[in-house]
Amino acid sequence: MTDSAVTIVVDALGGDDAPPVVLAGVEAALAADPTLMIVLTGPADVVDPFSATHDRVRAVATTEFIDMAEHPANAVRTKKDSSIVVGCRLVRDKEAAGFFSAGSTGACMAAATLVMGRIPGVSRPAIATVVPASERASVLLDIGANADVKPENLVQFGLMGRAYAQVVLGVSEPSVGLLNIGEEPTKGSMLAQEAHALMVDAVPGFIGNVEGRDIAAGTTDVIVTDGFTGNVALKLLEGLAKTLLTQVKDAMTSSPVRSLAAAVLRKPLMELKERINPDVYGGAPLLGVRGICIIGHGSSNARAVAAGIAVAARAARGHLTGRIEQAVAL
Amino acid sequence: MTDSAVTIVVDALGGDDAPPVVLAGVEAALAADPTLMIVLTGPADVVDPFSATHDRVRAVATTEFIDMAEHPANAVRTKKDSSIVVGCRLVRDKEAAGFFSAGSTGACMAAATLVMGRIPGVSRPAIATVVPASERASVLLDIGANADVKPENLVQFGLMGRAYAQVVLGVSEPSVGLLNIGEEPTKGSMLAQEAHALMVDAVPGFIGNVEGRDIAAGTTDVIVTDGFTGNVALKLLEGLAKTLLTQVKDAMTSSPVRSLAAAVLRKPLMELKERINPDVYGGAPLLGVRGICIIGHGSSNARAVAAGIAVAARAARGHLTGRIEQAVAL
Repeated sequence: MTDSAVTIVVDALGGDDAPPVVLAGVEAALAADPTLMIVLTGPADVVDPFSATHDRVRAVATTEFIDMAEHPANAVRTKKDSSIVVGCRLVRDKEAAGFFSAGSTGACMAAATLVMGRIPGVSRPAIATVVPASERASVLLDIGANADVKPENLVQFGLMGRAYAQVVLGVSEPSVGLLNIGEEPTKGSMLAQEAHALMVDAVPGFIGNVEGRDIAAGTTDVIVTDGFTGNVALKLLEGLAKTLLTQVKDAMTSSPVRSLAAAVLRKPLMELKERINPDVYGGAPLLGVRGICIIGHGSSNARAVAAGIAVAARAARGHLTGRIEQAVAL
Repeated sequence: MTDSAVTIVVDALGGDDAPPVVLAGVEAALAADPTLMIVLTGPADVVDPFSATHDRVRAVATTEFIDMAEHPANAVRTKKDSSIVVGCRLVRDKEAAGFFSAGSTGACMAAATLVMGRIPGVSRPAIATVVPASERASVLLDIGANADVKPENLVQFGLMGRAYAQVVLGVSEPSVGLLNIGEEPTKGSMLAQEAHALMVDAVPGFIGNVEGRDIAAGTTDVIVTDGFTGNVALKLLEGLAKTLLTQVKDAMTSSPVRSLAAAVLRKPLMELKERINPDVYGGAPLLGVRGICIIGHGSSNARAVAAGIAVAARAARGHLTGRIEQAVAL
């Protein structure tokens, strides 16, 4: 059975090494998915020649660019012909089923929220990520869209994260945990205690509190927290994984005999590095907007771009937006 | 030059494997420090024979025990002859310069706060830890004493953490960072923004915001956060370090040839494991009370107990309490 045809808009200007890395990522995504179609937004001299030489790629030339350093909401309001704003508009107008960019996270969030609009009933969209530290992946959200939240927001994050785990990780009945600093419902911050009380009734699959160690351990399919804690945790995770693997490598190459031994171990260690590589999971979804919006790391390579596009396609084919609509309406 | 004589009270009942592990830890601490003296609190049949057979150990028999599962404040109020409460009382009465326990964190906190009292001007004592993930260690606080804090509390955490880094890590002018989710002062939660504004003037060595990746990277001597975020970060750090090292080991022993190669790499990897081993840093200080109180992991082994006692001795010899008094009074 082949997947159904799906169209994803890709921001040709998103990321530190755009456009070349984005174009290479689009090529890889198309090669991996025979029924995928791409709309590429960006300057005419980038998108037109690429579209002319690639089947299944349509160009939509745009004239403006939103820099990583710009104030996101202002940039989105004033640069209506930017690759990001036009990309979100194409999703709103049903010319594409999803949007991927490795550009400014803030600008993508602002554009998706303003242009696509929020799903009815969702007060705060959240950014999720798939945490790849263990063999069983977990969806962690919010990882930075909302530094200050209310308990009701955390309830919705649980519902939205659950829909994402179903569609993208393929877990039929995902477990949902609330990140807290103790197992008992009465432990932790006022926010966490109030959220716990609400989530017990409102979130299917709710298993109660989970702790910091669970983020890397893969004990829970969905881990819910505010955007402050989630962002700190994610950056700590990325930083520590990098530091530890470098230290392992250094330890292994500290003498000729050790280097020789390390050569034998290259393959299993590369496999481990691969397993914890965020590129493989490709981008962070903004959940709660009326359309699929996947945001890649600014440092994305071609492979990460391809993975992000693939995630957008999977989310679109799995009707993620509709599922979230249903989940928050119940 | 020998260190000055110092007396530390040790809770013989603290920890999952107490008393044997605690007694072994006391022996190791005494062996490493010729001018250290120990007061041991616990049941007479444990502390008396040990004192009789060990120089520099005085026994103070107690009749009560606070379990890990008890409500901390209630237990401390009712069990006045417990090894924890008596230990804190001995510090208050100047019979010892510091207290170490690997027992219930909550009970130690409650006992130290109620019995020793808070340092004048300190509204919320905080628990700190030394984060050992990189070559340069950082002091992280609060790691769980205060799930909800005000900006003024974070200012005091910065001052107290700085005094601890001076005394225990030996850094003369420690840098202090505020854990946040962006570098600019206007980023992050309301709490972090308000704390940033206060810390600029109030905390010497304040370098502004740091992010999750800095916790493991050793970029800053002191990292200040609320007890919710700090606890999540610490547990994530411990969990991930353990998971990753296990995965490295598994990768290395997945075939006979690999096991052979791994044997060569055993030493450098053990050194790495050692470097990130929390046992080496021995326990978490409760800062802001009128006396030294170091709390060990419940799972402490003898080495961790010895390290915790050594930290208590170093803090006492460096006049940590007086330094914190001065820092918060300025």
